[in-house]
Amino acid sequence: MVETRDLLLRAGLEVLTEKGFSATGIDEILHRVSVPKGSFYHYFESKEAFGTALIAQYAHFFARKIDHYLSDKSISPLARLRAFVAGAQAGMASHDFRRGCLIGNLGQEMGSLPESFRRQLQAVFDDWQSRFARCLMAAQEAGELSRQADCEQLAAFFWIGWEGAVLRAKLEQSAEPLEVFARGFFAGLPPG
Amino acid sequence: MVETRDLLLRAGLEVLTEKGFSATGIDEILHRVSVPKGSFYHYFESKEAFGTALIAQYAHFFARKIDHYLSDKSISPLARLRAFVAGAQAGMASHDFRRGCLIGNLGQEMGSLPESFRRQLQAVFDDWQSRFARCLMAAQEAGELSRQADCEQLAAFFWIGWEGAVLRAKLEQSAEPLEVFARGFFAGLPPG
Repeated sequence: MVETRDLLLRAGLEVLTEKGFSATGIDEILHRVSVPKGSFYHYFESKEAFGTALIAQYAHFFARKIDHYLSDKSISPLARLRAFVAGAQAGMASHDFRRGCLIGNLGQEMGSLPESFRRQLQAVFDDWQSRFARCLMAAQEAGELSRQADCEQLAAFFWIGWEGAVLRAKLEQSAEPLEVFARGFFAGLPPG
Repeated sequence: MVETRDLLLRAGLEVLTEKGFSATGIDEILHRVSVPKGSFYHYFESKEAFGTALIAQYAHFFARKIDHYLSDKSISPLARLRAFVAGAQAGMASHDFRRGCLIGNLGQEMGSLPESFRRQLQAVFDDWQSRFARCLMAAQEAGELSRQADCEQLAAFFWIGWEGAVLRAKLEQSAEPLEVFARGFFAGLPPG
């Protein structure tokens, strides 16, 4: 039983990181995993409920990915952020730049999505930004970043722009936008 | 005759800066402007052709908007870029942050769009970036920006991130993401 729910969520994530929520029919997801429609509605009462579950699952998955990079004490805090960027580039390349960020995709589509998604998506960005802000504070402790820098603002700056970079990487089917953005971000950090 | 085509394009821009191409049916656009379907196909042979015309029209409209701000010789080059940002904030606010950037929206949706849009969208970004790069070079001439700065890279950095900021402003229904991004960008520029 749980397995079917997971299958549906996995297929949903695959499809929705490539294309939009509106452009995707439940049928397409069911077809991928050979699950009958009745079974879908056993687990999710609507497409909206499915979307909510997908956002929660992706947010959790990605927070662990961020922590994986940002908790590596063997390298300096800024090196950890750079490692996250390199990991994201490799991740996008491994899917030929077809898949982006589910949260960014849905955010862009907000105009035609259930209004309930809005706060959920904002909360996900806030969470990711907090994790980055803590790493930037560690960079201040380590003398890599100016004590005057506002780490919350810098973390927000990163995530606001990074979603644009993911979008452009998909459009250009290339890692270059991710590199250009990261280079610009790190070059602009006030040194410690 | 020309008027009907313009009506259709205007309605298309309105709808497509708010929601996605996939989420929008031709019928919805026709309904807005009370134009019969046959008339639509008189001007555009397909939804794809309509999309191509919309991108071209938006690109032209927005290039003129950029030039409007960046050709204002009464203020310094960096002040012109800041004026563009302020203008964009006011523009998004005037539509209650419902409307974003057509080019960014379509770029995000590329996974489910006609492949012919890809090069067209990339070319639009290249054009906007060139206009910004020229203004940044003028900032170097004026001693506002370091001679060592790579203006092409900085212009790409701006536009890659700016589209992320527009996305977040729509999601949060607030100008704050635009401000946070612009503040981060300008703060990171190496002084002249």
